[in-house]
Amino acid sequence: MQSPEPQSFDRVLSSMCTEPHPAAREAAERFLATNPGDPATYDTVAALEERAVELLATVTDHPTPTEASGYVTGGGTEANLQAVRSARNRHPAADANVVAPESAHFSVHKAAEVLDVELRTVPVDDEYRADINAVAAAVDDATALVVGVAGTTEYGRVDPIPELGRIAHDAGAFLHVDAAWGGFLLPFTDHDWSFADAPVDTLTIDPHKCGRGVVPAGGLIAREPAALDALAVETPYLETRSQATLNGTRSGAGVAGAVAAMEALWPDGYREAAERAAADATWLADELVARGYDVTEPELPLVAVDLPDTTFEALRDAGWKLSRTGAGEARVVCMPHVTREALRAFLADLDRIRT
Amino acid sequence: MQSPEPQSFDRVLSSMCTEPHPAAREAAERFLATNPGDPATYDTVAALEERAVELLATVTDHPTPTEASGYVTGGGTEANLQAVRSARNRHPAADANVVAPESAHFSVHKAAEVLDVELRTVPVDDEYRADINAVAAAVDDATALVVGVAGTTEYGRVDPIPELGRIAHDAGAFLHVDAAWGGFLLPFTDHDWSFADAPVDTLTIDPHKCGRGVVPAGGLIAREPAALDALAVETPYLETRSQATLNGTRSGAGVAGAVAAMEALWPDGYREAAERAAADATWLADELVARGYDVTEPELPLVAVDLPDTTFEALRDAGWKLSRTGAGEARVVCMPHVTREALRAFLADLDRIRT
Repeated sequence: MQSPEPQSFDRVLSSMCTEPHPAAREAAERFLATNPGDPATYDTVAALEERAVELLATVTDHPTPTEASGYVTGGGTEANLQAVRSARNRHPAADANVVAPESAHFSVHKAAEVLDVELRTVPVDDEYRADINAVAAAVDDATALVVGVAGTTEYGRVDPIPELGRIAHDAGAFLHVDAAWGGFLLPFTDHDWSFADAPVDTLTIDPHKCGRGVVPAGGLIAREPAALDALAVETPYLETRSQATLNGTRSGAGVAGAVAAMEALWPDGYREAAERAAADATWLADELVARGYDVTEPELPLVAVDLPDTTFEALRDAGWKLSRTGAGEARVVCMPHVTREALRAFLADLDRIRT
Repeated sequence: MQSPEPQSFDRVLSSMCTEPHPAAREAAERFLATNPGDPATYDTVAALEERAVELLATVTDHPTPTEASGYVTGGGTEANLQAVRSARNRHPAADANVVAPESAHFSVHKAAEVLDVELRTVPVDDEYRADINAVAAAVDDATALVVGVAGTTEYGRVDPIPELGRIAHDAGAFLHVDAAWGGFLLPFTDHDWSFADAPVDTLTIDPHKCGRGVVPAGGLIAREPAALDALAVETPYLETRSQATLNGTRSGAGVAGAVAAMEALWPDGYREAAERAAADATWLADELVARGYDVTEPELPLVAVDLPDTTFEALRDAGWKLSRTGAGEARVVCMPHVTREALRAFLADLDRIRT
């Protein structure tokens, strides 16, 4: 079978993945056959992973980036799962629970099922952010972790992270921030989300989303080494003592690509991309409102718009890769590959379809 | 920072990763920016994953390869973890346990810790294979899964899979075979290990090991769809109903590379590689025995040799990437990149060091 062509990103509007930065692609291709999971054999890529963690810790305002604990995960799901696992393992309760807003990514639900911990989801407020009172009411002595989202998948919202941290720590729980998508946008906003802004214990930030690394490259960063220590299992036949990662063999391409992208883009390249995406999202939202659609105001560059089902299907038929929120709105995520030109073409198709 | 060069494979003797097949590398580079975890957006790579599963099911002698359930995991750890999770979720016991030989890969220990199930490890026999009587004694009504290994990490041994299957099914448990490393070697041996040879329920086989795909590409294949159904969680905003994988975003490069390698090598290329590796392992074992070392007879092409610590360290200092079994023997894994020439150079260094 002749390998087919991967489709282009021209009409991909709902993905949180994007075209890698050219430097990331180049580095990934060179490190395709390396395994940071075996540092005694593949020492070069293992050193690159230390650099990746330092850079991710810098982006997330960790107090001591060169000493930060963390690793390059297979993606945001693994990072979230490991954060829940770490909290479960560190908490004394035998029946630990996790409290998260209903806006949390479905990976948090998956993590709870995998890890056999109770997940208590609480409502969001009218602005789709975690309802602080509901979170406070849901935590108890067995709460190991409170999850806040800094850039929700459905509406791009940022939860009140400092308040969630206070509630968590008052209850003896840890605070995890899921900034898988938002992490490379938020440094250029006024939101409180980082290690410097709030008592964050663990944080997810994915190079393979807005970081412009290559898949697979998620990121888990912890304030204290103890968070990673709680994940370690013994590793015979690797000439290293223990392994805190979920997988054994891991992608050297993902690690090398993440480092190359961050070296190329932090901070100015990411700032420019974030500002352009914000301007595009605001412009698109205004254009949609002008056409009479209900639009959720883009807090981060993600536009949710209520389109009739027939319109949504017609746009998919025209090749637009769109997906829907749980409530049914179409989502447009202004990723680096989504140009103003692409958005104009999208609106032109929408105008053609609705008339 | 200028990205450093990844080290070459010239002296890598203990890794179960290897240089990808050129076709796999080419396909991986083309599909670097795709995500089979979002099939409604990245449909081309999603179709390739169906082909990967069919090919893996063919290699493992699944009764109906075109209808087999499975997916391309991030690696053998994820595949093993998902097999344990599936069994736990399908078994009625609230306190399910898993029975595995002590030779099982440490990922099985990791899986048990993550999934909060009891792991009962049982001794191996004098030939480092699961002791059938010990396994039979360890299972009970709460045993959800019996694990057999077809190609152990330390000694390359193949457990008595049909007998393990009988014990498992008699106890109402499932049988999982870990052929992460051995899966592309075993079809060319007389061992009983596959879906055709035994009542195997789930099986791990990694394209990124002897399959010569690119990292990350593990494989989980199931006899029945119900094994995968037990892993499904709901997926809002993906335009697909559910997701059975552990990660969300996954590597299109891993999937495309796996398909390209299997298309190029199944079955003749893999047979030639397996026969060459077997000959090299036998030759190396004989050479080491002739030098007076204790060698574990290579059943699959993995040579464990008892070297003095000072010799082991001197070989590592000479650049040989060697690791040790739990009992301390050096391991040489005859992967495709380990040529007879490399083994001669290794022996020459050994001879220089020991005199």
